[in-house]
Amino acid sequence: MHMVAIGGSDAGISAALRAREVDPGAEVTVVVADAYPNFSICGIPYYVSGEVTHWRNLAHRTIGDLEDAGMMLRLDTTARRIDVSGRKLLITGPDGGEELLSYDQLVIGTGAVPARPPIAGLDELGPADGVHLLHSMDDTFAVMNTLEQTSPVTAVIVGAGYIGLEMAEALTARGVAVTQIEQLPEVLPTVDPSLGAMVGAKLESRGVTVLTGTTVKAVGRAPSFTPGRLLVEAVTVDGKPATRGADMVLVVVGVRPATTLAVAAGARLGARGAIAVDRSMRTGLPDVYAAGDCVITHHRLLGETYLPLGTTAHKQGRVAGDNAVGGHREFAGSLGTQVVKVFDQAVARTGLRDHEATAAGYDPVTVEWTADDHKAYYPGSHRIHMRFTGDRATGRLLGIQLFGHKNAEVAKRVDIAATAIFHGMTVDEVSDLDLSYTPPLGSPWDAVQAGAQAWTRYVGQP
Amino acid sequence: MHMVAIGGSDAGISAALRAREVDPGAEVTVVVADAYPNFSICGIPYYVSGEVTHWRNLAHRTIGDLEDAGMMLRLDTTARRIDVSGRKLLITGPDGGEELLSYDQLVIGTGAVPARPPIAGLDELGPADGVHLLHSMDDTFAVMNTLEQTSPVTAVIVGAGYIGLEMAEALTARGVAVTQIEQLPEVLPTVDPSLGAMVGAKLESRGVTVLTGTTVKAVGRAPSFTPGRLLVEAVTVDGKPATRGADMVLVVVGVRPATTLAVAAGARLGARGAIAVDRSMRTGLPDVYAAGDCVITHHRLLGETYLPLGTTAHKQGRVAGDNAVGGHREFAGSLGTQVVKVFDQAVARTGLRDHEATAAGYDPVTVEWTADDHKAYYPGSHRIHMRFTGDRATGRLLGIQLFGHKNAEVAKRVDIAATAIFHGMTVDEVSDLDLSYTPPLGSPWDAVQAGAQAWTRYVGQP
Repeated sequence: MHMVAIGGSDAGISAALRAREVDPGAEVTVVVADAYPNFSICGIPYYVSGEVTHWRNLAHRTIGDLEDAGMMLRLDTTARRIDVSGRKLLITGPDGGEELLSYDQLVIGTGAVPARPPIAGLDELGPADGVHLLHSMDDTFAVMNTLEQTSPVTAVIVGAGYIGLEMAEALTARGVAVTQIEQLPEVLPTVDPSLGAMVGAKLESRGVTVLTGTTVKAVGRAPSFTPGRLLVEAVTVDGKPATRGADMVLVVVGVRPATTLAVAAGARLGARGAIAVDRSMRTGLPDVYAAGDCVITHHRLLGETYLPLGTTAHKQGRVAGDNAVGGHREFAGSLGTQVVKVFDQAVARTGLRDHEATAAGYDPVTVEWTADDHKAYYPGSHRIHMRFTGDRATGRLLGIQLFGHKNAEVAKRVDIAATAIFHGMTVDEVSDLDLSYTPPLGSPWDAVQAGAQAWTRYVGQP
Repeated sequence: MHMVAIGGSDAGISAALRAREVDPGAEVTVVVADAYPNFSICGIPYYVSGEVTHWRNLAHRTIGDLEDAGMMLRLDTTARRIDVSGRKLLITGPDGGEELLSYDQLVIGTGAVPARPPIAGLDELGPADGVHLLHSMDDTFAVMNTLEQTSPVTAVIVGAGYIGLEMAEALTARGVAVTQIEQLPEVLPTVDPSLGAMVGAKLESRGVTVLTGTTVKAVGRAPSFTPGRLLVEAVTVDGKPATRGADMVLVVVGVRPATTLAVAAGARLGARGAIAVDRSMRTGLPDVYAAGDCVITHHRLLGETYLPLGTTAHKQGRVAGDNAVGGHREFAGSLGTQVVKVFDQAVARTGLRDHEATAAGYDPVTVEWTADDHKAYYPGSHRIHMRFTGDRATGRLLGIQLFGHKNAEVAKRVDIAATAIFHGMTVDEVSDLDLSYTPPLGSPWDAVQAGAQAWTRYVGQP
């Protein structure tokens, strides 16, 4: 039994680890495109900020750890072609030589690639000009090179999603004056605008210039009379110019699934062009699994969607690795649970927002509420801003969004809601949960229960 | 419709608030034995420590808030006798005058009284001697009076449960040298000894002298040649004397349900002598509900038990108030979820420990594991020590216990497990939960999922 995983990030490594755990006799090879297997891509902004002092610390496990777990690593090796019927993988090694790798079971974990928005001039510029995309360790080293070699004074970040916000904080920590440009009306468009506005206010309070409702049209080398090496031409939603000079430009507007290899092998595609898989992570091609950012996501409330997240990649990879060595696992499904820290605040969500629920056929009602993270009489309490979305007809909890201080246990509070939604609880039933309380760390009704009660008061019992 | 609640603490006030919320036309009276309705008893240690700067801040709501919610408060009023068939309550008001209060529905929320352990001399000494029990605001004022008037240098705390530990911290914060005496082998006997030992080590590191396996036999005025006004005679489990002088003695060894009034009215008693109620909080006496620390607790894994907690009292009171005005609520049941802060650490538990599960007919296995609260490469991470108890035959998660830094989101992590246990998840299924992740606040597999996976590796799939 020889399992081959393509990809050294969350899905591929999780598959390999699980296969070895379930079947210690299995031979497991992981084909890694670069020299950085099992690196925490989510940790890159904290290396850029200086909080992580060496890039090697970003490795979830060292190469030695992975080899001790019994997997063979093929580093700096590109997977070129899958011979499905022959169960062979054509690879190109670090020396450029081709090799055919036989497998019994294959797990495709090719991940995603950064989206390139339609910005004129973007394709002509690169890291040497101070223009960066950011997804891999090599991208990271290029960013660090620009920071260290050119000491940029100003930067434009195109995009205000998770990585965009984290990079705004990281560059600010390095003393770079950041302008963050977002096409949509508020930053962090994965949460409702009222919470996005709070995130935007936090950014501005820390010196980030936030331009929302603004689209970047072109990027180019700056004429000599403007400050900064680069000129970013942007326009507001009202058609007003919002052009900026900058020493550095970072484009982080999301990702698209990397499917070339799978498509060439005959894999079917699904939502957003990601590889179609069933909940066993089977592609439909014999003996070929796929997992992670390159595949569709089974969502517990939406069915098939595309929602690339590290947590999901870990789970899907684990299922694929388990099944590749004979298991019978199914991916239980995502709820899109996410959290991001923005300076001293945290924003988290799980489940559906109002418009997402409507699109999925629910009749949602969303209620905003605030509550203290712990009893206000005990020092250091923080307000948590919450938005609860539930289905009017059934009372079912569909989603929550939280904004509050990073020490307000926002991340794990959204997880309580994620666990409730996982089990199909109604909003009203959230009050039945027996949650912990001590005045320095909570309230007799936890903040999420107080919010649930506010929703029920507003909507009434179903 | 006139609902009367006896008791101004969590159960009585929650019943009154809920009755007014569900039926704004209902007349609601709350009979309060002292002048402090809706005070946070759990907050007392933080007033003693000085962190809560005025005792009035301990009120969840002011008297004005409660009256605005539409309830009539009868303060400094004692409920003396219930005339069940006549639906009347005999009360004695602040001026000593008797009155008969007619009701349509009655909610008994008489709470609990501090247990008095069999310590010779305890009944002869009181606050004037520096010997205190601690349960009510009046007890609190007495403790503060001793602290302020006699400036004790040393204190003995008998008992090392939640309040005992919190008071050890509070008195330490005030500069009092504390000796904590616990009969059982470790402090905080509500968690397993390995975690209790960590709590004990934390106490000692902050200057508290911890004597475990030690029973206090007698307390008396000290002879003139010993330091301290009081002499606490104690003996270790090996029979060795462990006698101490102290300026102040605090006895906090738990509570027993206050049932005299209910018993006289004919109420049936259940576990640990608490008032028997069904899950609608009905006592069986016509039109008489009971809730809070005076009643038995329906536990989701144990059935009928006695487990007085503020969170439970809130829930039970809310159910009673709802049903008293015509609702059809049931108390969903406790899991005994609890958390306590001890200096800069937090300890939390939910569900059953190994011996509790065995006693309840399960075949438990308990596995200890440690994991980081967030990615160790990001500054400020803390180890969380966890104990997972699951049923060998079914794989069902029965309980978890956590010990870690107070900023390690231990409280809300135990709540994730509480929500999982509420829904009868297996330990293995905990890995299916879609929990949030960002490096500064978590890991791709949350600590509780890492622990669940360790349990499953150890025990195997059911």
